[in-house]
Amino acid sequence: MADYELHYWTGIQGRGEFVRLALEAAGASYVDVARGPEAEGGGDGALMRRLRHASNPTPSFAPPFLVHGDFCIGQTAAILIYLGPRLGLVGKTERDVLWTHQLQLTIADMVSEAHDSHHPISSSLYYEDQKDAALERAKDFCTHRIPKFLTWFEQVLERNDAPGTHLVGAQLSYADLSLFQLVEGLRYAFPKAAAAALSERPLVAQLHDNVRRLPRIRDYLKSRRRLAFNEQGIFRRYPELDAG
Amino acid sequence: MADYELHYWTGIQGRGEFVRLALEAAGASYVDVARGPEAEGGGDGALMRRLRHASNPTPSFAPPFLVHGDFCIGQTAAILIYLGPRLGLVGKTERDVLWTHQLQLTIADMVSEAHDSHHPISSSLYYEDQKDAALERAKDFCTHRIPKFLTWFEQVLERNDAPGTHLVGAQLSYADLSLFQLVEGLRYAFPKAAAAALSERPLVAQLHDNVRRLPRIRDYLKSRRRLAFNEQGIFRRYPELDAG
Repeated sequence: MADYELHYWTGIQGRGEFVRLALEAAGASYVDVARGPEAEGGGDGALMRRLRHASNPTPSFAPPFLVHGDFCIGQTAAILIYLGPRLGLVGKTERDVLWTHQLQLTIADMVSEAHDSHHPISSSLYYEDQKDAALERAKDFCTHRIPKFLTWFEQVLERNDAPGTHLVGAQLSYADLSLFQLVEGLRYAFPKAAAAALSERPLVAQLHDNVRRLPRIRDYLKSRRRLAFNEQGIFRRYPELDAG
Repeated sequence: MADYELHYWTGIQGRGEFVRLALEAAGASYVDVARGPEAEGGGDGALMRRLRHASNPTPSFAPPFLVHGDFCIGQTAAILIYLGPRLGLVGKTERDVLWTHQLQLTIADMVSEAHDSHHPISSSLYYEDQKDAALERAKDFCTHRIPKFLTWFEQVLERNDAPGTHLVGAQLSYADLSLFQLVEGLRYAFPKAAAAALSERPLVAQLHDNVRRLPRIRDYLKSRRRLAFNEQGIFRRYPELDAG
C-alpha cells in the first residue's frame, strides 16, 4: 500500500502537479487515486464524491487534497508545508520552513494570475465567451506581471549566496520544484513572453534547467505519470494571448 | 519598544487587516510602522523603500510583511502561521495547525476573488477602465462564488461539534478572525448579495457576531487604529457590482 494518496482531477496537471513533483522528486510511495482504475476509486466522479463526503471533518474546498494516515489536507501550499519535512524538501530551521512557504505562496499567486489570464470573468464560462477580457488581461499579465514576478524570483536567487542555484540555502526545496513548474507552464502558455522574460533572468532559467535534470524528475517527465499541458488546465496555449 | 512590526500601506485595511486582527485579538504589542510618524519610518514611500531594500535576504513580493527579531515574513498566511502559536490563536496539535492554515488559505482565495470582482483585467488600471468586465465578473462572484464559498464555511462550522462557534475546535483561531473580516468586507462591498447569502448560513453569521463582541476586537473596531473600508481597498462599494 502506498504511503500517500494524492486526490486530483484526472485530465490536467493543474495545482496537483506541484504536489506530484514533490512526491516524485523525493521518490515517495504515492498513488494518484483518481487516475487509477474505477474499482480503486478512479475517475473524476469518484473524486468529486470524496470531495463532498459529508463525514470528513476537514473537507477541502477543491482538489488537490492529500490523504496520509489520519490526515486529509487541502490547499496546495498547506499540503507542501506538511510534506516538506517528511520528504526532505525543506530546511530544518523555522526560518527556512517559513521562507520556503512564503516563496510557495508567491508562486501560487502567480499561478492564479496565469489562470485568470484566460478566464478573467468566470471559471464556469468558456474561454470563447470571455475572450475580449482575456486579451486585455493576458496583455497586462505578459507585459507587467510576468516581468515583475520573475524579477523578484531572480532577486531571491541572487541574494542566496549558498552554492548551487536554489531559492533557499544550498538544498533542493519544494519551492524550487514549484518554480520549475511555473516556468514550464509559462513557456507552454506564453512562449514568446516567457522567452523574453527568461532571457533577462538567467538564474530563474538556470534553476529550471537544473530541476529538469534531476534524475527522478527527468524520469518522471518521460513517464506516463506526467500529463501533457492542455487547454483544460491552468496554463493554456492560446497564441492570441501571448503578448511577447 | 513593540514586539512586532507590521508593515502595510497606510490608507487601506487590505490584507494587512488579517494580521492586525490577530495582533489586536491577542493584545500583542505591535507597531503599524507605515502609519506612524515619518521620523519613525512612517509613510507609504518609506514602506516601499523597505520593501525594496537590497540587503534583505527574505524580501517580500508585496506588503504586508512582519518584522519580529531576526524574522522578516511576507504573505498574509505565512505571517499568520508564524503568529498563530505565539499569540495563542491556533491549537497545539499538528492537525489543528494545518487545518487552520488550510482554512486561512481558502479565505485568502476568496479575498483575491473579491478584489478581482472590481479589477478583473489589471490592478494598474482604474476601475472605470475595466468596468464592463467588472460588471460581468461581479455578477458571477455574487451569484456563484459567494454562495459556494460561504456554503463551505457553513459546513465546516456544522461539522465542528466542539462547543461555541469556531472553525477549529472550541478555541478562537486566526481563521475565525479572518472569516469575520471576510464577512465584514462582503457586507461592505456587496450588501445585498451578502445579506442574502448570510441569511441562509446562520453559523457563519453567528461566528462573525461573536468575533465582533470579543472585548479586544470591540475596542479595536471603535479605535482610530481601525481604518474604514474605502474604494482603494480590496472590498469596494460600487453599488452596480452588488448583484444581490
